[in-house]
Amino acid sequence: MTERVGFIGLGIMGSGMAANLLRAGFDLTVWNRTPERAEALVAAGASRAATPADLGARCSIIFSCVSDTSDVIEVILGEQGVIEGAPPGALVVDMSTISPQGAQTIAAALAERGVHFLDAPVSGGSEGAARGTLSIMVGGPADQVARAMPCFQAMGATITHVGGHGDGQTVKLVNQILVVGTMLAISEALVFARASGVDLEKTLQAVSGGAAGSWMLSNRAPQCLRRDWRPGFTIDLQQKDLRLVLQAADEVGAPMLVTAQVFQLYRALQAAGMGQEGNHALIKALERLAGVEVGAGQG
Amino acid sequence: MTERVGFIGLGIMGSGMAANLLRAGFDLTVWNRTPERAEALVAAGASRAATPADLGARCSIIFSCVSDTSDVIEVILGEQGVIEGAPPGALVVDMSTISPQGAQTIAAALAERGVHFLDAPVSGGSEGAARGTLSIMVGGPADQVARAMPCFQAMGATITHVGGHGDGQTVKLVNQILVVGTMLAISEALVFARASGVDLEKTLQAVSGGAAGSWMLSNRAPQCLRRDWRPGFTIDLQQKDLRLVLQAADEVGAPMLVTAQVFQLYRALQAAGMGQEGNHALIKALERLAGVEVGAGQG
Amino acid sequence: MTERVGFIGLGIMGSGMAANLLRAGFDLTVWNRTPERAEALVAAGASRAATPADLGARCSIIFSCVSDTSDVIEVILGEQGVIEGAPPGALVVDMSTISPQGAQTIAAALAERGVHFLDAPVSGGSEGAARGTLSIMVGGPADQVARAMPCFQAMGATITHVGGHGDGQTVKLVNQILVVGTMLAISEALVFARASGVDLEKTLQAVSGGAAGSWMLSNRAPQCLRRDWRPGFTIDLQQKDLRLVLQAADEVGAPMLVTAQVFQLYRALQAAGMGQEGNHALIKALERLAGVEVGAGQG
Amino acid sequence: MTERVGFIGLGIMGSGMAANLLRAGFDLTVWNRTPERAEALVAAGASRAATPADLGARCSIIFSCVSDTSDVIEVILGEQGVIEGAPPGALVVDMSTISPQGAQTIAAALAERGVHFLDAPVSGGSEGAARGTLSIMVGGPADQVARAMPCFQAMGATITHVGGHGDGQTVKLVNQILVVGTMLAISEALVFARASGVDLEKTLQAVSGGAAGSWMLSNRAPQCLRRDWRPGFTIDLQQKDLRLVLQAADEVGAPMLVTAQVFQLYRALQAAGMGQEGNHALIKALERLAGVEVGAGQG
Repeated sequence: MTERVGFIGLGIMGSGMAANLLRAGFDLTVWNRTPERAEALVAAGASRAATPADLGARCSIIFSCVSDTSDVIEVILGEQGVIEGAPPGALVVDMSTISPQGAQTIAAALAERGVHFLDAPVSGGSEGAARGTLSIMVGGPADQVARAMPCFQAMGATITHVGGHGDGQTVKLVNQILVVGTMLAISEALVFARASGVDLEKTLQAVSGGAAGSWMLSNRAPQCLRRDWRPGFTIDLQQKDLRLVLQAADEVGAPMLVTAQVFQLYRALQAAGMGQEGNHALIKALERLAGVEVGAGQG
Repeated sequence: MTERVGFIGLGIMGSGMAANLLRAGFDLTVWNRTPERAEALVAAGASRAATPADLGARCSIIFSCVSDTSDVIEVILGEQGVIEGAPPGALVVDMSTISPQGAQTIAAALAERGVHFLDAPVSGGSEGAARGTLSIMVGGPADQVARAMPCFQAMGATITHVGGHGDGQTVKLVNQILVVGTMLAISEALVFARASGVDLEKTLQAVSGGAAGSWMLSNRAPQCLRRDWRPGFTIDLQQKDLRLVLQAADEVGAPMLVTAQVFQLYRALQAAGMGQEGNHALIKALERLAGVEVGAGQG
Repeated sequence: MTERVGFIGLGIMGSGMAANLLRAGFDLTVWNRTPERAEALVAAGASRAATPADLGARCSIIFSCVSDTSDVIEVILGEQGVIEGAPPGALVVDMSTISPQGAQTIAAALAERGVHFLDAPVSGGSEGAARGTLSIMVGGPADQVARAMPCFQAMGATITHVGGHGDGQTVKLVNQILVVGTMLAISEALVFARASGVDLEKTLQAVSGGAAGSWMLSNRAPQCLRRDWRPGFTIDLQQKDLRLVLQAADEVGAPMLVTAQVFQLYRALQAAGMGQEGNHALIKALERLAGVEVGAGQG
Repeated sequence: MTERVGFIGLGIMGSGMAANLLRAGFDLTVWNRTPERAEALVAAGASRAATPADLGARCSIIFSCVSDTSDVIEVILGEQGVIEGAPPGALVVDMSTISPQGAQTIAAALAERGVHFLDAPVSGGSEGAARGTLSIMVGGPADQVARAMPCFQAMGATITHVGGHGDGQTVKLVNQILVVGTMLAISEALVFARASGVDLEKTLQAVSGGAAGSWMLSNRAPQCLRRDWRPGFTIDLQQKDLRLVLQAADEVGAPMLVTAQVFQLYRALQAAGMGQEGNHALIKALERLAGVEVGAGQG
């Protein structure tokens, strides 16, 4: 059987992902709340659905990539949602980052209509979405993962089937805990280095290759030294995800000393108007406290 | 001029480093407080000095790699110390991890006798010392760094001249802040994953390659899952270094929210008798708090 | 005009408060979801309403004291809620602890019907409710505060008009931040004292009267020494309030380093089954970490 | 036997304490490093010793109240120290705040000469010293405590014999943990209140009398609202004591999450030049982070 593929949500992430599906030769139908965002894809050969329900009726695999839990629920389960059009046997794959519990709720609601579900959040940013090099963390039954695999391979470089419904989301939250905790360590280390008066570029050069090394150190610390706060991932989006982390942790009873602190530090930066800066601007919270500024050329 | 090379301190790190110097063809003289530890090197062709002063008199470049600031001061500046034997123009290179201020004090004391100094602490563990793949962070004048470079290249893979006297030590402390802060993030992420019930091995597989990735995640997190607490670097040694960090930060006025917390968490583990376990056992402090245990096969 | 007084919510707090209104001579009508809880008050002279709407129709001042924001909204604004019965000019006074924003929402909804509103959360526990010695923090217009004052005086010893709608709730949250932060300091101090081996009762005796003194130190620390975890206020209820604090802080952009940590520590205790113990059991989180137990007779 | 009383250290604390001993009728001999500071006491009837040793030879009970451990060791055990003059059977009472271990070391050194020792640190500030209302926490043998009691009663209002040598110091450190932890809670609560827009004076009025109440809230929070940073106890002195806390905790293996954080926050303020402000200026660290300023009249 040839799958007819649908994609809902053509934002900064979704537009790149959908384009990669099209480029890989899939028969693609798209829908976006703001229809203008679909034009480039339609010009490149995609069909346009009138509503999520219409898209559901026309496709066998439906991907969604929207902002938050309530948006996902609306386009999938809401009025004129996918569920109103998708026939039994269809597969819905949500690639947004939402709560693990939300993913399970959606899976259960779709199952009542005989529709399959996978939660498949991604990491890798808009660049990874455009290049097709995303990491995709998939939760759900193995046969449906296999079914979606050709599509996943068009969008990502690392696809990991991590467990059942919701587990993809949980692993995505684990990813976010690691990202912000590592950035906090980097922030403290750079502020210490700056206060100590050492050359910051040479410091990074000396420590990045060993046990202290990380993706964030190699990619975001140099940005901090250039005071380049352009986002790979904005503080506002990071906070949205950390709210999911803290809420999920509250539900499973896991104490989160570091993430809770980072959330509060980002909150201070948001209150100061920096929500659209990159998540590496976390260092500014420690700079504020320390009364120093990290920057290249200093020593 | 051919340098005659001396090495003081043949512990778990120093013995590997000295062996690499010998293997690289240097004319090597060694001294260790416990003389037995020198036997293998002597059998392999090294000479043995009677005292640090004797070693100082017989060598043009003298390396030291001992436990802490007071040991370094004793073997270099103390009675029968290197300073009593080393002629003007000799070079002393301390590869121990001590305080930046301690390094500056030693540099100043040696300078009064016309003896040069470099601080050159390392990272990479006993394995890196044995294989000659250490990271070496060097502080001191460029001409002396160039003079010691052939020796450094026999011992390490990444040699970075980071600044003046003491700056090598400062950068080593930056390295330690990053290592423990990253390990704290990993600990919190794994405890959250465990409490959430996801498969931990698949979780690591999914997140290690992207923005959440780090050397510690790739190398120490799998050890945590196997509950293998054998040390790459022990908690006791880590705490010694964190004391240096907190003391140096106190001197330069840098606030250390994360490192101060990690120090307290390690302190709890030391009090419970785990000081000889690896620094990745930090996760046990969070496990204790959370009342869960991370382990492979759980999900 | 003589006010006819209604009271909704006869739980552990509300039953004592309503009894004090009755004892002070007010003409009292009551309603509780579980009708049995009203029996003692009816036996003592109170009337019983069939629904909150019925109660609203029969009273000029309506007090509510229920569990959380959704309960308050249900009994006041929901189907058969107070709003359906209360005539223009009536006054609704909510004494539950809910979000400041929730209080403002309710005030606005009632205002559309010409019904007045005050938020008036309390502190002082079930004992204070029974004895009529509560602290009452009131938000809303001054004339309505004056109108409710005779009732407040029957229920509390300290009545403070702190500001407009929602401000009573904000001040209650300030109260909770102080309570748990003080308890955290006490916990750390007692664990330190215990690890140091000093007599804990003499320690409390020495420090309680001076700059280190607090209500929690005088009242809860001795309970810790007796390992008496009976609640003045349970961890479960405390967490409910801390969620309101963290949510309100998120809305106004205030970073909460301490409260966020305490929330996580309590979360660990809840996960271990201690949610019904008193909020002073916070010390058990630090005891777990430290591997010691505070108790009298130890030294 | 009539005791001849000596007092070493006539700083801001010691001068008040010595004056109270004189006023109570004790035969008093004094010594201070800067002799001018003794003049008022000598004019009022005290004798002046030439050195601590001279004072030791002339007195049966010798009190000391100086800056830190090394000063105490110098005046008691150093060259021309008390130990060189004091006869067997004399009693040395150190009222400085030093490490518990330091107190034990001094006790042991004096015991070898047959000289008794008590550690008796105080709280209550310069005002308490002047008025004779200090809290005195005493460690050492009961018979010597009884012997010193008439003197203690001239200087303090609450005298507690808490245990053996060093225990007085440990309890003083417990006191300091409580003071700074409570101040941290107050700081966070006031910053939250400020960001929420409530009237801060009314807030304090509403919460100070109940479970949230503390000496610091009643005495230091109003100073914060007036932005009056005059010290009851300076940040510099507070940090000296917190260093003792963290060092003692390190020795006994107690994890100090809160105190370690407060130390880092004060460190940031010291680096910004606020070391001579009162310890309630801790709130400025949170204000910096939050980007708000607490002050009366705001709301």
